[in-house]
Amino acid sequence: MNPSRMRAARRAAEIEPFRVMDVLARAHALEAAGRRVVHMEIGEPDFTAPDAVVEAGVRALRDGRTAYTAALGLPALREAIAAHYARLFGLQLDPARVALTAGASGGLLLTLAMIVNPGDEILVPDPGYPGYRHFVRAFEGVPRPLALSAQSGYQPTLDMVRAAWTARTRGLLLGSPSNPTGTVVDPAKLQRIAQFVAERGGMLIADEIYQGLVYGAPPATALGLPGEVVLVNSFSKYFCMTGWRLGWVVLPSARVRDFEKLAQHFFICAPSAAQHAALAAFAPETLSVLEERRREFERRRDFLVPALERAGLAVPARPSGAFYVYADCAKFGLEATDFALALLEEAGVAATPGLDFGSHGTLRSLRFAYTRSRADLEDAVARIARFCAERR
Amino acid sequence: MNPSRMRAARRAAEIEPFRVMDVLARAHALEAAGRRVVHMEIGEPDFTAPDAVVEAGVRALRDGRTAYTAALGLPALREAIAAHYARLFGLQLDPARVALTAGASGGLLLTLAMIVNPGDEILVPDPGYPGYRHFVRAFEGVPRPLALSAQSGYQPTLDMVRAAWTARTRGLLLGSPSNPTGTVVDPAKLQRIAQFVAERGGMLIADEIYQGLVYGAPPATALGLPGEVVLVNSFSKYFCMTGWRLGWVVLPSARVRDFEKLAQHFFICAPSAAQHAALAAFAPETLSVLEERRREFERRRDFLVPALERAGLAVPARPSGAFYVYADCAKFGLEATDFALALLEEAGVAATPGLDFGSHGTLRSLRFAYTRSRADLEDAVARIARFCAERR
Repeated sequence: MNPSRMRAARRAAEIEPFRVMDVLARAHALEAAGRRVVHMEIGEPDFTAPDAVVEAGVRALRDGRTAYTAALGLPALREAIAAHYARLFGLQLDPARVALTAGASGGLLLTLAMIVNPGDEILVPDPGYPGYRHFVRAFEGVPRPLALSAQSGYQPTLDMVRAAWTARTRGLLLGSPSNPTGTVVDPAKLQRIAQFVAERGGMLIADEIYQGLVYGAPPATALGLPGEVVLVNSFSKYFCMTGWRLGWVVLPSARVRDFEKLAQHFFICAPSAAQHAALAAFAPETLSVLEERRREFERRRDFLVPALERAGLAVPARPSGAFYVYADCAKFGLEATDFALALLEEAGVAATPGLDFGSHGTLRSLRFAYTRSRADLEDAVARIARFCAERR
Repeated sequence: MNPSRMRAARRAAEIEPFRVMDVLARAHALEAAGRRVVHMEIGEPDFTAPDAVVEAGVRALRDGRTAYTAALGLPALREAIAAHYARLFGLQLDPARVALTAGASGGLLLTLAMIVNPGDEILVPDPGYPGYRHFVRAFEGVPRPLALSAQSGYQPTLDMVRAAWTARTRGLLLGSPSNPTGTVVDPAKLQRIAQFVAERGGMLIADEIYQGLVYGAPPATALGLPGEVVLVNSFSKYFCMTGWRLGWVVLPSARVRDFEKLAQHFFICAPSAAQHAALAAFAPETLSVLEERRREFERRRDFLVPALERAGLAVPARPSGAFYVYADCAKFGLEATDFALALLEEAGVAATPGLDFGSHGTLRSLRFAYTRSRADLEDAVARIARFCAERR
């Protein structure tokens, strides 16, 4: 026994790996052996950044605009983001409340570092993005899962939040559109939840990373809701800039200084060239490229959801955003993790087991990402249908 | 009173801002009013990334190699970094032990998240890089400052480490070359310290971010020392890639999995295009550009140290690395923070007050960065000399 192994921080033991990585590793092994795999496990657009963004990045690199920026980011980009809220929602936002971060991950990490004392509880959605609970744990807080089911569209309700709130609760984290379910919280319900959280002196942390990717309704935001609201967002998904590692956070004015101080040390700044490039993300011609991509995601959803249902996988809550379908495989008599591995092994389709997203109903659930071309999705659906047919 | 303000995490209150930011803000105000300021407060090379690195970055952007990478980074870059240790030090390093991070900051953050339980102590240099103590605090650990003075070249000795080590101590953090002092730890002394830390079952975390920037002796590394050693490094300083936000960590094999798991959640990955660009950093022609820059830094040091001494500022330990001079202003009868503000206000030279780096002797100390051209440094020295002459 190596005694030093006993001395890892407890958080390192308790923070779980992404189980999808096991799927991915096996998928790569199959591909290396000559098998074709359709990758539906990846939460990353198949589109790269729009040309105007790429070229703005190229100019930044060649002009040497690659020094550290201020910890909160380039003033011009903070202003551009504030203007984005004005354009989308007609809401005035002081650019001083906008902080650029190393992706939404960096924004969540800093937000929780800013408010979580040891033992503090944060309510998190279950199923939900795994980072939520791990970031709370990282700072010695206690993530309290809200058990979400299809009946509430996999979004928290006021009753749930009220029932889970204790004297130790510091806030509520939610994602809308949700990863893994693609569902969107009802604005009137969110308003009531925000009111409750405000009355309790808590913080509402709204992960809006999939904000632009909604179908059938305009984008929504928690900006302007009562109480202390922090918005977490990113250029990764709608703007197709994943590996650029650039996100942003909108903070209550009174929190900006604490956030800045932590950001100075944890990150120094978000990547500079990505910040310069992102200035081109809000140009009308870029936004029209992104809108066309959004419509393509919508067409994929419209194809995929009924196709999975025909194959025998239930989709208990219709997704109206992000690029995920959260499907139920219970009737096939396999735990979802085993179902995912068998689906990969036998049919060459990679999906994410629900267990990555929490513990409530996740053993019967799988996440399929439609971040592949229509042709790939058609191929995948045929494979899934055959696989399911053999198991009825 | 806003009650929510009382509910910030204690760490947010205890983590201090960079005081140099006050200097910087005042410098910008003076410049806006038409005054010339020589910036010697900035820990960032005045050189940008070498052309080959920039062009590799441009190709990555245009080719769309901007997706998420594996959490630990591109395999080819991990191999290139391992080869770098073989070339510099003749040491074999398994690329599987190399992790790419969002700058050295990201590497330090993940390393401390991995090993610090609440109440655990980590020994940190004082004066030293402020992030050290703040990262320990961030994860509810206790940073224990080692009071360093010029007699030991502002580096810890075995006696100090032994005297400070308690049952709660988990490890020792040190920087060599040091920020803010530019001093290098003696290899034989470091060997003995590492042996002691190993015997106590602790971890030695060696911040080698200024590794390539040494003058008069070849670069050194803690790689290969006894016990659990983590090396933190970066492309920011020697490779002049600050805003690219790319660093790396070399881990004991048994720690890689925990580090990877935390990195997946905290960062997803280091910026992709920066990783592709950094592949060009180790080409012989790039390294020869960087070596010429290193010699330029050395010439600046050789000019600046005696010039500051002639002006009346003592340099108690001659710097042999990084790009800093740590000077003593005690004889002028002003605390260094006031000295720095007066120097800026009256002479137009910005320097960093020692207080940013800890509490031991820091009220009499200032850090001057020679990250400006020789002409700027000559101008600065003339200004400093006049300022000091008026105060004798």
